[in-house]
Amino acid sequence: MTRIAYTNGMFVPHDYATVSMDDRGYHFADSVYEVIAYNQRGFFVDGKRHLDRLRSSLKALNIPFRMSDQALFLVMHELVRKNRHSEGYVYLQITRGIAPRDHLVRDFLEPTLAMFAEHCTFQETPPHLKVFTVPDIRWKRNDIKSTSLLGVVVGKYQAANKGGDEAWLVNDEGFVTEGGATNAWIVTHKGVVQTHPATNAILNGITRQRLIEIAKDVSIVVEEKPFTVEDAKSAREAFLTSSTKGVHPIIEIDDQKIGNGLMGDITQKLQKAYWHFYQHTKNDYGEIS
Amino acid sequence: MTRIAYTNGMFVPHDYATVSMDDRGYHFADSVYEVIAYNQRGFFVDGKRHLDRLRSSLKALNIPFRMSDQALFLVMHELVRKNRHSEGYVYLQITRGIAPRDHLVRDFLEPTLAMFAEHCTFQETPPHLKVFTVPDIRWKRNDIKSTSLLGVVVGKYQAANKGGDEAWLVNDEGFVTEGGATNAWIVTHKGVVQTHPATNAILNGITRQRLIEIAKDVSIVVEEKPFTVEDAKSAREAFLTSSTKGVHPIIEIDDQKIGNGLMGDITQKLQKAYWHFYQHTKNDYGEIS
Repeated sequence: MTRIAYTNGMFVPHDYATVSMDDRGYHFADSVYEVIAYNQRGFFVDGKRHLDRLRSSLKALNIPFRMSDQALFLVMHELVRKNRHSEGYVYLQITRGIAPRDHLVRDFLEPTLAMFAEHCTFQETPPHLKVFTVPDIRWKRNDIKSTSLLGVVVGKYQAANKGGDEAWLVNDEGFVTEGGATNAWIVTHKGVVQTHPATNAILNGITRQRLIEIAKDVSIVVEEKPFTVEDAKSAREAFLTSSTKGVHPIIEIDDQKIGNGLMGDITQKLQKAYWHFYQHTKNDYGEIS
Repeated sequence: MTRIAYTNGMFVPHDYATVSMDDRGYHFADSVYEVIAYNQRGFFVDGKRHLDRLRSSLKALNIPFRMSDQALFLVMHELVRKNRHSEGYVYLQITRGIAPRDHLVRDFLEPTLAMFAEHCTFQETPPHLKVFTVPDIRWKRNDIKSTSLLGVVVGKYQAANKGGDEAWLVNDEGFVTEGGATNAWIVTHKGVVQTHPATNAILNGITRQRLIEIAKDVSIVVEEKPFTVEDAKSAREAFLTSSTKGVHPIIEIDDQKIGNGLMGDITQKLQKAYWHFYQHTKNDYGEIS
């Protein structure tokens, strides 16, 4: 079946989806994006929150984007329908637009919107992951979900070379900020869940935010406080979160086993609770027929 | 006249030059570039040095690119010829290639090469510029000439909003690293030229390297040593360099006049010397008919 993408205002076969060479996304990484999962019932998971964050990223970079949430959701739904996936995610990228290459934008530009859909299955029984710590060499505005991602590409490459499933990024002070494309969490021996606070050093994941709320519901205490690599290695449990993965347990950090080397109790409780939320969520932005 | 660009192995009208939406340059800024000026006689200025640096950037990111310098120069010359510019520069970008979006590269990819030519005139009498200092929020590998440039875009925007022609980026220690798309220099009251050393904090500009050599020839002392914003504001002279600009005097930093507010003697001497080099240089990589 032909995969369908959306570029330049049109649905096109994915393999023929192109953007201008003069797109600022290509020359300067002057663009933002979102990855939004949809469940087997066809509902976007925390769709409204993703689009709210998209607006924040656009605002932080002064990219004026006029298409409404309603119109965006319409296109997203149509994209999913055309691709006939039962479950997966939509990738959505907005760049500042097309202009002769110049760092400085001198005129109003029409932003470029590109989207594609990908099939993937949210795993009820998650894989057990190994991570490796690498230096966090990224820029200082990781709160913006931009495509300036080369620092992450380098970090994930280093971790994968050692056999890791994900990289944990460590800043100059020795704290783990987040994973390459996930948020990083540990569980202390007191049973407290710990994750880096939502500063400019991390992207405040939508799944991260949702999990903090879910944790409250199941009476698990979450502290937003940085932890070191040593804290992590001696933790009772560790896990990561992302919109397409939910909660995945981490059983090794830098080749060192965490806890008993299996998914811990608290991780499992959170994983199941998030899984339940994911399965039963409905669109949070009103009806789209 | 139709502008001609080079993408996907072909010369195409610039306005129709596209790249795949799945290009890693678009999703991840996983790419490097060079800007290479050519003078009125049609010679690339320090062309070999630019391609050498391109190879260094590619190597730093483990991007395998097999096209030889000779072949690259052939395409560059043909691009200039087709565009019939008397003087200008070639922009050349190489990305890791096209692949389904995943931070991690799992297979060998064919890198993507894109080029365009732009007309511009190298000014014998350079404009007198004003700069504003802004925080250096970029990543930690500015020695790689990558397209992960959003930090620069933000900085140049901040400086331009205040009326600046360029941004000077200031790191956490208070040192000026470099300009948004230029290297930063001051002249002390002892007549010593000072510029940030070529660490990971800056891009070691080809014009920067060339100017250090030229300075020696005209008996001007250059020290590669970081300077603070205060050092700069109280300096005798200040200037910037880039491949398309050569040497441009800076007459104001953060609204404060530098020296007597005109181009200083040492800046002028270096500007003239570089201008002479630029005008009289020939290809440094052998003959291309």
